[in-house]
Amino acid sequence: MAITVVGSVAFDSIETPAGRRDRCLGGAATYFALAASFFTDVRVIAVVGEDFGPSQESAFKARSIDTRGIERAAGKSFFWEGSYLDNLNEAKTHATELNVFGAFEPKIPDAYRDSDFLFLANIDPVLQRRVREAMPQARLVAGDTMNYWIKDHRPALLEVLKGLDVLLINDTEARMLAGNSNLLQAARAVLALGPRMLVVKHGEYGATAFYGSSPKNLGAKTFRAPALPLEEVVDPTGAGDSFAGGFFGYLASQPELTPGAFRRAMFYGSVMGSFAVERFGTERLQQLSREEIDHRFTLFRELTHLD
Amino acid sequence: MAITVVGSVAFDSIETPAGRRDRCLGGAATYFALAASFFTDVRVIAVVGEDFGPSQESAFKARSIDTRGIERAAGKSFFWEGSYLDNLNEAKTHATELNVFGAFEPKIPDAYRDSDFLFLANIDPVLQRRVREAMPQARLVAGDTMNYWIKDHRPALLEVLKGLDVLLINDTEARMLAGNSNLLQAARAVLALGPRMLVVKHGEYGATAFYGSSPKNLGAKTFRAPALPLEEVVDPTGAGDSFAGGFFGYLASQPELTPGAFRRAMFYGSVMGSFAVERFGTERLQQLSREEIDHRFTLFRELTHLD
Repeated sequence: MAITVVGSVAFDSIETPAGRRDRCLGGAATYFALAASFFTDVRVIAVVGEDFGPSQESAFKARSIDTRGIERAAGKSFFWEGSYLDNLNEAKTHATELNVFGAFEPKIPDAYRDSDFLFLANIDPVLQRRVREAMPQARLVAGDTMNYWIKDHRPALLEVLKGLDVLLINDTEARMLAGNSNLLQAARAVLALGPRMLVVKHGEYGATAFYGSSPKNLGAKTFRAPALPLEEVVDPTGAGDSFAGGFFGYLASQPELTPGAFRRAMFYGSVMGSFAVERFGTERLQQLSREEIDHRFTLFRELTHLD
Repeated sequence: MAITVVGSVAFDSIETPAGRRDRCLGGAATYFALAASFFTDVRVIAVVGEDFGPSQESAFKARSIDTRGIERAAGKSFFWEGSYLDNLNEAKTHATELNVFGAFEPKIPDAYRDSDFLFLANIDPVLQRRVREAMPQARLVAGDTMNYWIKDHRPALLEVLKGLDVLLINDTEARMLAGNSNLLQAARAVLALGPRMLVVKHGEYGATAFYGSSPKNLGAKTFRAPALPLEEVVDPTGAGDSFAGGFFGYLASQPELTPGAFRRAMFYGSVMGSFAVERFGTERLQQLSREEIDHRFTLFRELTHLD
């Protein structure tokens, strides 16, 4: 099944203890699309500026990602500059230039309209909702968001949540959205807002899936995927979007959405997140094979399974 | 196989968002012994004061724990007062009164000398080493420590580490001991100090076991046990000691120390930690059944296993 993803395609300047990269290809939709492309067909809706050239385009083409929905506008692409010098778990933002992204009006190519899977990456919830409504045929819809929208655009975000099958956010965002510091209570509160499933990403500790009909307190309807202890985290940028790409890409590749498929999808999400952070930007995702992915999936199983 | 544990038996006054308890039974050796007692015979070496009466004694007796090594001294027992009002993951200490514990000279009853398993709970490393040397027959020795000993008693602690089979500490302690913020690199550095195995406890995110011969970067020699997302953490005190008791108690109950036994021990450690925090102090461990423990073990398996 094909996935359409709407979100940012951008340039990032990143500094980490491992070094620095200037204006490398980034953006939530980029990480998501690259990660998901190892599992299924991916179509991107985004806007870029005149600085988006053949070398950026070829990163998508090399993974057979459909870029007909990437609009070219006059001006510069979305640009983000950040560093992780003190703390690899939290970016310090030095600059955010929306540029052409500031006036983004998602346009959906006709060729995308039969997409069964839709991913609403972290953008203005007003746009997320508009894309969702313009693609009524999508039968599984997942999305992401961030602290800014949770704090300052809550009514619009709540409208989006009502229509989501899966919400993927991190610990801090889940607690903020629910106004509750206990993760299980926060998860229940978020599920009451609409999503049928909530995936909370814990960074180096993996991720937990909470299902809507979770019984009180204990676990049969909860699933926890590990993260791999890594020798070196070169650049954490895009780990969450890569998790989402692996998770949703794997689901879209399955003939049936069984409970087992969701569990394996959680593992594939963790696997793709673990690759993303091994090099700067999207470098690792651009030089990855399905064989490496499945090898690491096996390692994740060994890392967590009793027998 | 019987376990001998040396450590504190104490009174704790604890305040958490769920309420307050004054002078309840506590201490690392107490939590450890209660948790381990569901799996094997446990013998305690500690010192208490005149305030340690029949009701405290009966908490051990009810679990058939051997208390002949608990010395009664003139004065008061070790007392700790702390709260977790702002952050359930970190205690704020209001008072620490060593009392009779300040002059603790561990005395090992002859009846303990055939213990195959020895656990050195978090006490002065000089005492840990003395007990270890006085019990040369112990064939598996595990231990705990804390930031205070790591920072200010490093030479004595390093001597203890040389003789340990398993060191159980938390994230912060592992990073501090190694002087390295990357968990995998920190684990390798700690293993180079002597322990054949390192178990790093991650609180609400579970625990990771690192084995001495771990290959570079990836996972076959690493194992991660989950923690259960809990509806309410009533009192985190003793969670780490209860983990250690479940882990080591289960190992001691096994006919052979296979890799599978260590994996299951990690799960039982997480299980006992998850029970400990459900009520104040040792209340939950005192009212627990092996049936409940094994039921939760099954839940932990479902929480993490693909099939």
